[in-house]
Amino acid sequence: MRLRLDLAYDGTAFHGWAAQPGLRTVQGLLEAALAQVLRLEAVTVTCAGRTDAGVHARGQVAHLDVEPGVLSAAAGRSSAPPAQALLRRVNGVLPADLRVRRAGEAPAGFDARFSASWRRYAYRIADAPELVDPLVRHTVLTWPRRLDLEAMNRASRALVGEHDFAAFCRPRAGATTVRSLLELGWGRDDSGVAVATVRADAFCHHMVRALVGALVAVGEGRRDAGWPGERLRRGVRDGAVTVLHAHGLTLEEVCYPPDDELGARAAATRRLRVPAGGRDGEPGG
Amino acid sequence: MRLRLDLAYDGTAFHGWAAQPGLRTVQGLLEAALAQVLRLEAVTVTCAGRTDAGVHARGQVAHLDVEPGVLSAAAGRSSAPPAQALLRRVNGVLPADLRVRRAGEAPAGFDARFSASWRRYAYRIADAPELVDPLVRHTVLTWPRRLDLEAMNRASRALVGEHDFAAFCRPRAGATTVRSLLELGWGRDDSGVAVATVRADAFCHHMVRALVGALVAVGEGRRDAGWPGERLRRGVRDGAVTVLHAHGLTLEEVCYPPDDELGARAAATRRLRVPAGGRDGEPGG
Repeated sequence: MRLRLDLAYDGTAFHGWAAQPGLRTVQGLLEAALAQVLRLEAVTVTCAGRTDAGVHARGQVAHLDVEPGVLSAAAGRSSAPPAQALLRRVNGVLPADLRVRRAGEAPAGFDARFSASWRRYAYRIADAPELVDPLVRHTVLTWPRRLDLEAMNRASRALVGEHDFAAFCRPRAGATTVRSLLELGWGRDDSGVAVATVRADAFCHHMVRALVGALVAVGEGRRDAGWPGERLRRGVRDGAVTVLHAHGLTLEEVCYPPDDELGARAAATRRLRVPAGGRDGEPGG
Repeated sequence: MRLRLDLAYDGTAFHGWAAQPGLRTVQGLLEAALAQVLRLEAVTVTCAGRTDAGVHARGQVAHLDVEPGVLSAAAGRSSAPPAQALLRRVNGVLPADLRVRRAGEAPAGFDARFSASWRRYAYRIADAPELVDPLVRHTVLTWPRRLDLEAMNRASRALVGEHDFAAFCRPRAGATTVRSLLELGWGRDDSGVAVATVRADAFCHHMVRALVGALVAVGEGRRDAGWPGERLRRGVRDGAVTVLHAHGLTLEEVCYPPDDELGARAAATRRLRVPAGGRDGEPGG
């Protein structure tokens, strides 16, 4: 039996998603909490987007496989459905900066990583003193100069589509850096903060933060609007593109196709991504 | 010369607004930062709403009086207007959980406390596991049971208007507890979190949190919708009304009349509020 978990976390005090010995990671704490509640020695959780240290998530999705008997036993005499009882108990064990928001049986063919159609990230920047809100200082980057979002949107348009994003990715041996960037655009939220919406089938490592870094250079006038597109066509990662700070980045949503297409989607993604050797999640933006 | 400062702070690590020896307070840190930047021995700042320990502010307003020569000297050779130079320098001294968002010369007759027409607070509650967002956990109260906002709105209507709010206030010798509650209503924000909007000419101590406490009792079905109105008419503070946690409360906005009415408004408020002995700000909700 496969469970789908919807997660949210404040990345500030985590060394990212992926479990690492001796470090406080989302995967590490979540697997430990699940193992404790399910009374198992160990539990393995797979996520949709392996976020880096300091990156946040409001819409992370993960799955784990569990024997129905183990789940019922953990639920005990609770009158709630077993997955709901699990959610309450796991949240009782987890720290306040990591929450399971929903838990339920996943439909057949569901794989948090491989079935996903797209991931959506937001990058938030307060580019004037009156926009700096201490209540959201851990999720919004403060920038000392005003950004020209119109120029950034012009530059963004050249990046949308299926491209080799090598210029914006930390390379990984044997892995393709071709991705479909479905959406990249800037606007201001109700409070006036600049927000990038970045949506792709999948992301390579550092990709969102490098794209945002290139666009901020346009927004403050250091580069012209054609420059990020030139970098893309050049296809080489070098020091000219800055990877912006982690704390402005939040994984907002992961989208899956209708239930009857989950299996086919997972198989197609596996063919595309796995040749270089399986990993337990997609690099996180 | 009077300066108006617009402030925002994360109340989590502050013992409230009012300066107290040996405690980390908003007023204490702000006055120290201003004195340092203005090269004065001491500075006195007056605010619109003296928030309690743990209460946040996005729209706090304060004023201070300063000699024009002192301000220009502090601005030094900056090409920005002196108040802008002050804003940058003070923010450079202040910690990240306290920001000056705007600074400028106040119009004649302006008094951050006495000229204000009304104060608006928001109280935020996540009343289901899927609404709990770790990224805003310091400003949103988590509640274990779903709240019936419709019932809470029915109960709220009986409280709007000019009343003696003694049943919802921590009494203070010689001070009236009559206030004009201009607005009290519940809705859900885009994420589904329950938000109370509470707006009044002024608030007594603990008033917003006591009103919200009485309404939450209605929302979860422990009391009927008529109960908060009954408490109001009884006019006695007792243990039946709970003062809800500070961290769900944020001072969002302070409104002032048009410039040519500032002086008259301040004079009228002083007649109403000061007989019991002046304080350096209005109690904060």
